[in-house]
Amino acid sequence: MQQFDAIWVNANIATMTENGKPYGAIENGVLAIKDGVIAYIGSRAELPDFDALGTPLYDVAGQWLLPGFIDCHTHLIFGGNRANEFEMRLNGASYQDIAAAGGGIKSTVTATRQASDEQLFVAAKKRLNTLMSQGVTTVEIKSGYGLDFASEKKILQVAAQLDQYHPVSIQKTFLGAHALPVEFASDAEGYIDTVCEMLPLLKQAGLVDAVDVFCEGIGFSTHQCRKVFQQAQVLGLPVKAHAEQLSNLGGSALVAEFSGLSADHIEFLDEAGVVTMAAAGTVAVLLPGAFYFLRESQLPPIDLLRKYKVPMAVATDLNPGTSPLCSLPLMLNMACTLFRLTPEEALLGVTRHAAKALGLTDRGTLATGQKADFACYDVMQPAELCYQFGVNSLKQLIINGKDIKGDF
Amino acid sequence: MQQFDAIWVNANIATMTENGKPYGAIENGVLAIKDGVIAYIGSRAELPDFDALGTPLYDVAGQWLLPGFIDCHTHLIFGGNRANEFEMRLNGASYQDIAAAGGGIKSTVTATRQASDEQLFVAAKKRLNTLMSQGVTTVEIKSGYGLDFASEKKILQVAAQLDQYHPVSIQKTFLGAHALPVEFASDAEGYIDTVCEMLPLLKQAGLVDAVDVFCEGIGFSTHQCRKVFQQAQVLGLPVKAHAEQLSNLGGSALVAEFSGLSADHIEFLDEAGVVTMAAAGTVAVLLPGAFYFLRESQLPPIDLLRKYKVPMAVATDLNPGTSPLCSLPLMLNMACTLFRLTPEEALLGVTRHAAKALGLTDRGTLATGQKADFACYDVMQPAELCYQFGVNSLKQLIINGKDIKGDF
Ligand SMILES: [Zn+2]
Ligand SMILES: [Zn+2]
Repeated sequence: MQQFDAIWVNANIATMTENGKPYGAIENGVLAIKDGVIAYIGSRAELPDFDALGTPLYDVAGQWLLPGFIDCHTHLIFGGNRANEFEMRLNGASYQDIAAAGGGIKSTVTATRQASDEQLFVAAKKRLNTLMSQGVTTVEIKSGYGLDFASEKKILQVAAQLDQYHPVSIQKTFLGAHALPVEFASDAEGYIDTVCEMLPLLKQAGLVDAVDVFCEGIGFSTHQCRKVFQQAQVLGLPVKAHAEQLSNLGGSALVAEFSGLSADHIEFLDEAGVVTMAAAGTVAVLLPGAFYFLRESQLPPIDLLRKYKVPMAVATDLNPGTSPLCSLPLMLNMACTLFRLTPEEALLGVTRHAAKALGLTDRGTLATGQKADFACYDVMQPAELCYQFGVNSLKQLIINGKDIKGDF
Repeated sequence: MQQFDAIWVNANIATMTENGKPYGAIENGVLAIKDGVIAYIGSRAELPDFDALGTPLYDVAGQWLLPGFIDCHTHLIFGGNRANEFEMRLNGASYQDIAAAGGGIKSTVTATRQASDEQLFVAAKKRLNTLMSQGVTTVEIKSGYGLDFASEKKILQVAAQLDQYHPVSIQKTFLGAHALPVEFASDAEGYIDTVCEMLPLLKQAGLVDAVDVFCEGIGFSTHQCRKVFQQAQVLGLPVKAHAEQLSNLGGSALVAEFSGLSADHIEFLDEAGVVTMAAAGTVAVLLPGAFYFLRESQLPPIDLLRKYKVPMAVATDLNPGTSPLCSLPLMLNMACTLFRLTPEEALLGVTRHAAKALGLTDRGTLATGQKADFACYDVMQPAELCYQFGVNSLKQLIINGKDIKGDF
């Protein structure tokens, strides 16, 4: 007789595996967990004998189970907010006015540097609770608002604390090459050297799962990003980039050259870039929130990504400057509405493909042996999770096999 | 000694009145209520003597109080959902395919006709709870998915039940002239006559606060809408219209001619139409959710509305076909991001101007004698409520002087 910790029955299950059906669906199925992983998934008929009296059983009466959502691109830890700048701009202030008033990314860097660990933790925890309340079980968090060693380390330490004290699983990304700090005003090369010096120390402290760069005219050149990637390669760390958001510099191809995890934004990516990504197995991370908030018009090359079978992930890009939108379900709607992804593509983008974008193989699908991270939704079909927004249909959330109730 | 039911102190108050300050702000103020209305609002120094021991006192420590939000345009009561159609379209189905599969507004009419009162009530209550959880205290609900007497009456009765059994205050709008029902396939005139026959009966049943029409090429002509308005006028009911959403038929001017409450959508409104609205005191109701969901490109004439001082309201247009977005805070963000409203304009749009769009003078601002409908937000400035989306900063919600806790 098999031992389970809990069993879900009468469940429609969107496994998000490739089982030949849309959403990898199993209709009227059973899911059983043991020790934080999925121990059985499939039909009721083939469920092995188990201790029927001693095992908690959830009859979900035809509701849908999906993998816990994965937000694979966020800047969730930051100080302050940019409401003032938002209001100034809408009242007609120019970018110079806003810069003169201390606005822009510099204001977030200043506020983040000034904030204590605890202040950052408390503010970030609220955002993480919000994401979790909508079915998110894994979140990537980037540094990049510190831009000096102590402040970058502080952000990554807060991310590590969240990983330890919050049920949501955190992936920590070092994004030292996010912007040029005031200390290096016109010395981008010097700052890149500093970033390369920070990296081994932060890695040694156990604070880095991956390395990101902002490859853009207003960020860093491909030459500078290459230096950071080379350092990451030496240290055995996977890389990714903010690339082709505002122009086509070749950042995505650079990521692919380093067999990197993902190229993110990619509105201006061309066919050659898509081909290199496909060959390298690099994921395209689509960020419709930033597209919306910046009122961009250049759409990412969705048809080319489909043609060359580049996996597409979808994330919030949660950040105070260009995507102050703390909702992955909203991104599902925006991915469909603005980028014309199908609901299945969008949901793959926050499950299987988002896991791939983080280099994680133990989650993002529901299958035997996978992490028991899943959610139960009161919907008739998975597409409802993309189509409508606002009414939260999440009924139960399981992380590591534990039933999560409320906030933390 | 004055008697109060409760007092809020150390409050920043966005009264949304015209007191010469942005947001009609009172800094570090006091608000006191008695018998469901605001009995005092102003500085602590001028607060009259009161029973300090017997009055509940809330120290909100610098948080912001705002009027309860008013969602002045919704189709909140409907059966079914259109996720299937959404998914079909994104998978490449044509409008003909979707129509052949029973999609479009007809599918919602069929599902709404088939639904019982209780089913409609339960589904609508979830949406209303979601709106309320984000600070909404008054909601307008339109009929228009019944399109026969019994079904239109059923919708308006459910709206009346929500008004009775749910803390949120409901305004009921008859939108019989929403679409042509199958029974009147090619006889729009005949259906309009039927609508005009329904109206006095529904009014007599106490189910109609206002009358709406869908004035559009794919809806009804101005000639047909005029017939409905004339009947409303005879019955002493205020009018409004879905107008100038996809083309400029002159629906807004028609509303103005009848001294109507509001013209809604109005992306294609021209200067002459704006002038007539200004003269008639008709409110422009902006619906950025439908603009977003339909991926429209024609912006409403915001600068002209400003120039002629037409009050602008902002609403969800919550409906299953063109705005399945149950969130007024999201509309605040979209009004700023997509329509370039200032945060103050957007917040006026869900408070003072939304009240005006419903012909209500007892709410939408915080002033002595106004309904005690207000919310306390953990923000540093009102603009944050427009700038960021997702993390709910609502800390307390008062409706009719009662502290609302949780769902209903
Ligand atoms: Zn980013
Ligand atoms: Zn409408």
